[in-house]
Amino acid sequence: MPSIAITHINTLVTNDPSLGSGPLGRLRDAALVVEDDRVVWIGASSRAPATDSHLDAAGRSVIPGFVDSHAHLLFAGDRTAEFHARMSGQPYEAGGIATTVAATRAATDAELARRLAHFRQEMARQGTTTVETKSGYGLTVEDEARALRVAARQLTEVTFLGAHIVPPEYRDEPAAYVDLVTGPMLDACAPHARWIDVFCERGAFDAEQARAVLLAGRARGLGLRVHANQLGHGPGVALAVELGARSADHCTHLTDADVAALADGTTVATLLPGCEFSTRAPYPDARRLLDAGVVVALATDCNPGSSFTSSMPFCLAVAVREMGMTPDEALWSATAGGAAALDRADIGRLAPGTRADLALLAAPDPVHLAYRPGVPLVSAVWRDGARVA
Amino acid sequence: MPSIAITHINTLVTNDPSLGSGPLGRLRDAALVVEDDRVVWIGASSRAPATDSHLDAAGRSVIPGFVDSHAHLLFAGDRTAEFHARMSGQPYEAGGIATTVAATRAATDAELARRLAHFRQEMARQGTTTVETKSGYGLTVEDEARALRVAARQLTEVTFLGAHIVPPEYRDEPAAYVDLVTGPMLDACAPHARWIDVFCERGAFDAEQARAVLLAGRARGLGLRVHANQLGHGPGVALAVELGARSADHCTHLTDADVAALADGTTVATLLPGCEFSTRAPYPDARRLLDAGVVVALATDCNPGSSFTSSMPFCLAVAVREMGMTPDEALWSATAGGAAALDRADIGRLAPGTRADLALLAAPDPVHLAYRPGVPLVSAVWRDGARVA
Ligand SMILES: [Zn+2]
Ligand SMILES: [Zn+2]
Repeated sequence: MPSIAITHINTLVTNDPSLGSGPLGRLRDAALVVEDDRVVWIGASSRAPATDSHLDAAGRSVIPGFVDSHAHLLFAGDRTAEFHARMSGQPYEAGGIATTVAATRAATDAELARRLAHFRQEMARQGTTTVETKSGYGLTVEDEARALRVAARQLTEVTFLGAHIVPPEYRDEPAAYVDLVTGPMLDACAPHARWIDVFCERGAFDAEQARAVLLAGRARGLGLRVHANQLGHGPGVALAVELGARSADHCTHLTDADVAALADGTTVATLLPGCEFSTRAPYPDARRLLDAGVVVALATDCNPGSSFTSSMPFCLAVAVREMGMTPDEALWSATAGGAAALDRADIGRLAPGTRADLALLAAPDPVHLAYRPGVPLVSAVWRDGARVA
Repeated sequence: MPSIAITHINTLVTNDPSLGSGPLGRLRDAALVVEDDRVVWIGASSRAPATDSHLDAAGRSVIPGFVDSHAHLLFAGDRTAEFHARMSGQPYEAGGIATTVAATRAATDAELARRLAHFRQEMARQGTTTVETKSGYGLTVEDEARALRVAARQLTEVTFLGAHIVPPEYRDEPAAYVDLVTGPMLDACAPHARWIDVFCERGAFDAEQARAVLLAGRARGLGLRVHANQLGHGPGVALAVELGARSADHCTHLTDADVAALADGTTVATLLPGCEFSTRAPYPDARRLLDAGVVVALATDCNPGSSFTSSMPFCLAVAVREMGMTPDEALWSATAGGAAALDRADIGRLAPGTRADLALLAAPDPVHLAYRPGVPLVSAVWRDGARVA
């Protein structure tokens, strides 16, 4: 690919404090040069080297592409009516995750692939250049494996979540379902996934079941992630830290011991405010985590049941409004924080050698992502150095 | 203009209960025909008449364009740093509305016009086909009049808000400023405006000053609007209802008597959740107003100080999350409610004879505006029958 320079960037966020001011490594009147799939130069606009082509940012800003480290995009079916009823105070029978499981099992591979590509493009238009996605709506060996196969054709960050819920067929023998997940299902799924995840929550999987799932995944070389402490206090966060999971996700209800464990460990706390927004639940306290020194990521949790937003800018704005984050902290968590939660050094920041994943914003500073909530400010996006929106 | 049919609309919201089901007048698998600037036909997709051209909505939805009945778009200057400091818990000197007043006075007419056109287009891309805008950052006879002249070249719904704050020059003689507003300033401004508005709040204008402003405006043929009960309980709502103002805006702090007055009167309660979102203030209680039978509108309050969003979809989603509105009520308030607040029968609904102001959404039902917060779902917009986004 020919090289391209983006010049006259009013604010360039690098997330590299050695390149610019503050934790975001902010540069003013900057330029950035992309060659192939990499950033090769960053500096003052007036000193930008000659390149094959050139885009004048004309006072706009550039940020690393958002890293959405938690989403559930491998599903079929439509739950609009369920959301409509819930937010209208109306009764609604027979909704819930079982509806999505049934529709997903009935969908073709092509349909799952088409939907995933659609969401990926919708996310790209909103500045997201990396998205993780999980299985968990198949819940049979065949349906989990084929969902992950579909995902692996489009994405790098693919997560096996056979332990999402105990499916209806195993309602009376959850132990047998854990055996399936840690046995034949893991055998079929591990080749297509980088991560394993478990929903450790009252009504889903308890601490010992979750431990069994995570240890089996680790034995197959998968990295660990945990859905933890979403609906109430529980053992998920402690387990995630103990096992060195890369991320504990939700973290809505935490004891002081949970916070201390996260601060002392290597596990990122991934907060998902779209979920609390869409279920009218209390928000996690990001301030408490940040003040304790915990690494915090923000992600969408995009899924048809509890958080159908695909918008990282929206999640960032809500995090500033509701979770005690500053606009800079929220932007860091939505980019570098997501990269940390995925253990990726090549994304989430912009420096010579990083992947050329970046978004051009129609705003003089990315503070506008919180200052102008809901406004589509993303005006161009590059992923691996190629324009994707 | 040639006629155009939009067919295979999965959900068409008309806001006309005689055309479809419920208060939104929902139609399924519908079509709509536009000729010149008007809607001329609505019905079943299979019965759509022949037209010059044709757009297949392919299962998407169509709504009346949003009517944003409260915005402050006639300004210059940049208050990003002030917002950044406020949301980061940092001190910030010398910010506030005075900064915007100084920058607006220093701006050329062309600059004000260019900014207004920019916001109008940004809003159109988000589905807004009518926006009201107010003066109030000039605060001299010349600066208020020229701002309104600029606005009147682009907009119909133009509001004289000389009584926004008492400007620095009159700090010690507010009565003299009220005399200016109701005298020479009104003389210069009334020819360019349809409405007069006053900020009736502790620290701005008290009940008697507000009454004087509104009565002077009414005597010049202007319709009445009031900024009322935003920061605390006060006389604004009662005054608005007593004088038959078309709208009382904010309505965040209401007594039972205020709610009863609104229910008995002809004044629309316009709620501005972007403001509470961006200032971390408590939200108005829409449910209480709706249950009392008050007509409720939603608007953005788009302004650089307290609510810089231009996104009606965002305000709608926040209203559902925080203010007790159902998704249908919020959509009605953002379209028909805004039209009521502007006393307009030709917009805010879709029926033969109404203005062809409408938005095509990339969603099977507009419930997605609340179900998928932050996601840019607006895929095409027509204003006066012409495609504008
Ligand atoms: Zn999840
Ligand atoms: Zn206002």
